[in-house]
Amino acid sequence: MELRILLKDIDKYLDKEVTLSGWIKKNRDQKNFGFIEFNDGTSFKGIQVVYDENISNFDEIAKLNIYSSIKVTGKVVKSIGKGQAYEISASNISVYNACDENYPLQNKRHSVEFLRTIAHLRPRTNTFNAVFKVRSLLSYAIHKFFQERGFVYVQTPLITGTDAEGAGEMFQVTTLDLENLKKLDYKDDFFGKPAYLTVTGQLHVEAFASAFKNTYTFGPTFRAEESNTKKHAAEFWMVEPEIAFADLNVLLEVIEDMMKYIIGYVLENAKDEMEFFNTFVHKGLLDRLNNILENGFARVTYTEAIEKLIASKHTFEEKVVWGMDLGTEHERYLAEQIFKRPVFVTDYPKDIKAFYMKLNEDAKTVRAVDLLAPGIGEIVGGSQREEDYDKLVKIMKEKGLNIDNYEWYLDLRKYGSVPHSGFGLGFERMLMYVTGVENIRDVLPFPRTNKSLEY
Amino acid sequence: MELRILLKDIDKYLDKEVTLSGWIKKNRDQKNFGFIEFNDGTSFKGIQVVYDENISNFDEIAKLNIYSSIKVTGKVVKSIGKGQAYEISASNISVYNACDENYPLQNKRHSVEFLRTIAHLRPRTNTFNAVFKVRSLLSYAIHKFFQERGFVYVQTPLITGTDAEGAGEMFQVTTLDLENLKKLDYKDDFFGKPAYLTVTGQLHVEAFASAFKNTYTFGPTFRAEESNTKKHAAEFWMVEPEIAFADLNVLLEVIEDMMKYIIGYVLENAKDEMEFFNTFVHKGLLDRLNNILENGFARVTYTEAIEKLIASKHTFEEKVVWGMDLGTEHERYLAEQIFKRPVFVTDYPKDIKAFYMKLNEDAKTVRAVDLLAPGIGEIVGGSQREEDYDKLVKIMKEKGLNIDNYEWYLDLRKYGSVPHSGFGLGFERMLMYVTGVENIRDVLPFPRTNKSLEY
Repeated sequence: MELRILLKDIDKYLDKEVTLSGWIKKNRDQKNFGFIEFNDGTSFKGIQVVYDENISNFDEIAKLNIYSSIKVTGKVVKSIGKGQAYEISASNISVYNACDENYPLQNKRHSVEFLRTIAHLRPRTNTFNAVFKVRSLLSYAIHKFFQERGFVYVQTPLITGTDAEGAGEMFQVTTLDLENLKKLDYKDDFFGKPAYLTVTGQLHVEAFASAFKNTYTFGPTFRAEESNTKKHAAEFWMVEPEIAFADLNVLLEVIEDMMKYIIGYVLENAKDEMEFFNTFVHKGLLDRLNNILENGFARVTYTEAIEKLIASKHTFEEKVVWGMDLGTEHERYLAEQIFKRPVFVTDYPKDIKAFYMKLNEDAKTVRAVDLLAPGIGEIVGGSQREEDYDKLVKIMKEKGLNIDNYEWYLDLRKYGSVPHSGFGLGFERMLMYVTGVENIRDVLPFPRTNKSLEY
Repeated sequence: MELRILLKDIDKYLDKEVTLSGWIKKNRDQKNFGFIEFNDGTSFKGIQVVYDENISNFDEIAKLNIYSSIKVTGKVVKSIGKGQAYEISASNISVYNACDENYPLQNKRHSVEFLRTIAHLRPRTNTFNAVFKVRSLLSYAIHKFFQERGFVYVQTPLITGTDAEGAGEMFQVTTLDLENLKKLDYKDDFFGKPAYLTVTGQLHVEAFASAFKNTYTFGPTFRAEESNTKKHAAEFWMVEPEIAFADLNVLLEVIEDMMKYIIGYVLENAKDEMEFFNTFVHKGLLDRLNNILENGFARVTYTEAIEKLIASKHTFEEKVVWGMDLGTEHERYLAEQIFKRPVFVTDYPKDIKAFYMKLNEDAKTVRAVDLLAPGIGEIVGGSQREEDYDKLVKIMKEKGLNIDNYEWYLDLRKYGSVPHSGFGLGFERMLMYVTGVENIRDVLPFPRTNKSLEY
């Protein structure tokens, strides 16, 4: 098989004969000659293949439907057509598979709703091809950023016996035969006790930060929330770095560096795809992202943010009062109207934040941070962790957690406890931000949501 | 906080004053002065900190237990001690946290069995520190190999409605209240139907290979096998590349290139850790790995391999006959005794392989491959896939699969079907091979096995 030449490298082969295998994106025949818009999947932009009656099977080729798979041999020549540098003048075209004429992706605009019903085929469309290429690059950029800085990647477990947040909304994992379950006895279950799918890798990665200092997780996370919104999926990916000997200020620097690095990486390595999003999905997208690269992020405390929101006299659906959890309307107003750039909001009231966050000296707020971005609101959440054993036990009791379930976690505060901080980045939310795509169902390869489990 | 200087970069600071935060690995005081073996987690090798009565809190420091966390300021000087290039002459040491004296990891040899009972602390030991550092590097090497070759990373879903292999051994995922389950009605379950944890991402990534040509998954996979062996975990990670327009020969090249690349990456980026494994965990490890880098892999068909095994006259526990599934004893004999290097065994009997593998013209064997490595046996399994719609449906019916569950998968053969191939690499098995560690429980951060779900 001649596989060595890929469309993405075609510019190295001007005036040379090449053989490429790929798919027909369009096929127009004009009696004695024809044009195929051809792509092998390695390049966002396709190439035009020109064929004429010199190929022995002209009639067969001229009849081929969209997405038929073919092998083309021909010379790479400069194109006189506009919008393309090269084309292939075919000397031979053979057919792997003539695509069935019922192929649902004929050349016309399809709604994203329709395309969700053919999730196995939608990566073949321009929009989803670009989305999933950028998804891959963004994933790699995250690994590259942390690995180049010596962070250790920890694959924290997905099946867990405890619930990190103390809240429900978890999936249970079982091998019990539910069809014939007479009496529930966990002795018969696979793990001998109830098991769940994790909602965060944070507690587990903290154990590794206390050995390696700089660590991160990047893996799937699950929420059994019965909400059908554009933002919620039952299965999604999270990036959760955890850094020993780091206070909140250090954390903010890491977040800002990471955001700029991964956005920069995608802009540089997916130019065609990003141009496409900017033109067809979200006008102004490139300005928004370049704005992030060029400007530092703003910083404000929660208390100051509340004051600014009140002083703005803007009418919000939910009235602004100290102690409230900020809604998306407040978050976006802060980032878009007040700061006009991404803003770190720090030091939230302890009552609206998780138990592991470090208490400030005011005893009312914790060393938490949310990064709010224009156009989307919260995109990162993190905190300095409470490293003091006694304080941590006290707040866990106040919040009604069962201390026995967290014995190993509390050990980290008995044995070599250090100031440490970490954050969580919802990977799909970041991908939506980078591509301008507005529904989480359209950035997940095969989305899983409430009452929807296809493929 | 002075965080900019990490132990891994200490050689840049000779004769300079530095501040480092980290942990005490050993502390010996000799009346007027003392030595701390210090590590901040960023380097496998620690550094010696020398302190004397010039530091104001000498008595406090001299009493500190192992794994107390400290901040050290001092000058980096050449060491006269053997086995180390530099040491730090401390001018100031402050304490974050004096480690509790009940710390279970005192300086003596601990069994891996004991260390499994403190999985949250074991990354602090030399062995596990090296294992999890190499785990991180090996993960990254896999991404780097595929990304640098333009492969698209696809995060295939973990929750699934179907079973890829047609076999059982799956975990069920549910939000039904098992404590109060009176009548089983999947309408009330989260997805409105039975849901499981996936055993492979292959079928899903095939859909993406038919758009991008070169793709891979790298994510968690689950098996509810009730076997307590050194090789089996309920949750583990798999790498599953899938390549369009690739026959089995191309696949073998990709496997061999990948194996050499990722082993080479670890050897180059974890020199200290690999020396440690070679000395303390598996003597001869480096020879074994260098042997892989230097020699091509052998190739043999299953039928030839069976002939060679029979001709060897070696007595196996299970007698060698054509049609059998090779056991580890046969696999290792082939790699270790007959070929003395990794060997690709191809073209297995169709009856012992999965439905999606391409049938050979002999109608008895399929285009499957297993890579067998000395010391471990099977490490990679793959195949060219059956791309012909009719043949695929026929074999699925023969194997008793419910065609309705695979409609979307069969669409890939109706619409632009191409020859394509892929393989699966069990990530933990590879990590065991690279480190010489023999139990899968010791290469997973928090292992999940039958009847064992801690942390």
